[in-house]
Amino acid sequence: MQLTRAGEYGILGILYLAAHHEEPVVMLAQIAEAEGIPESFLRKIFSFLAKQGLVQAHRGRSGGFRLARPPAEISLREVIEAIEGRIALNVCLMGPRACDRMDRCPVHDIWREAQGALLRELERHSLADIVARGAAAHRRG
Amino acid sequence: MQLTRAGEYGILGILYLAAHHEEPVVMLAQIAEAEGIPESFLRKIFSFLAKQGLVQAHRGRSGGFRLARPPAEISLREVIEAIEGRIALNVCLMGPRACDRMDRCPVHDIWREAQGALLRELERHSLADIVARGAAAHRRG
Repeated sequence: MQLTRAGEYGILGILYLAAHHEEPVVMLAQIAEAEGIPESFLRKIFSFLAKQGLVQAHRGRSGGFRLARPPAEISLREVIEAIEGRIALNVCLMGPRACDRMDRCPVHDIWREAQGALLRELERHSLADIVARGAAAHRRG
Repeated sequence: MQLTRAGEYGILGILYLAAHHEEPVVMLAQIAEAEGIPESFLRKIFSFLAKQGLVQAHRGRSGGFRLARPPAEISLREVIEAIEGRIALNVCLMGPRACDRMDRCPVHDIWREAQGALLRELERHSLADIVARGAAAHRRG
């Protein structure tokens, strides 16, 4: 029940893009260095983010990445699920036929509620919101 | 970010004990059969639950297990953490020095809030409450 290293790095990487959304593209090496992430690992993670339509790759000499949508329109939940797959606290939440005890299991509804509470928290924060939080903390610090 | 099979079986096993709390002890084989769990795996899981003071082992010919506390006083969160360890959605929530970015990371507070929402849901349900839900569903069905 824990975010993977890939998920953690993916969040840091896409937040860097969000903070530099005014620039046409950002080099992967620049993000990797700024966030202390191995570049080859970050490249793999960004390929997942690109597949899910969250970032765009720009090839060529001045190649790099940029957000595919405005940072206010990408939620933390989307970023996590692009890398880790659909969030399901228990197997029974993976789909309608995921567990054969489902119709008589008294814990199923509790899982659903707990997962709902978690997802609501991850959904209500956009990348723009998180970048603004970071900037505010930086000014305070 | 998903409950392990051990966690799932542990919840089913301890709920069986909670539903049979009036009996002096319940045989492990009986729980394993009723819930469709391999007995040797359930024995290991129950040893974690015993270590955390949630169940008591009674040895001997009429040996077995019973809850160490009334079912209304054991929460779903306690059961999960006894088996899986402390719930931490991200490494940064494992302890005060778990991440060296903590003081400037804009996502840390969001993780803390999301985890808080999840833990509140898992805490507000006791074993007695879940057993009552199951009984009510059984009557409806």
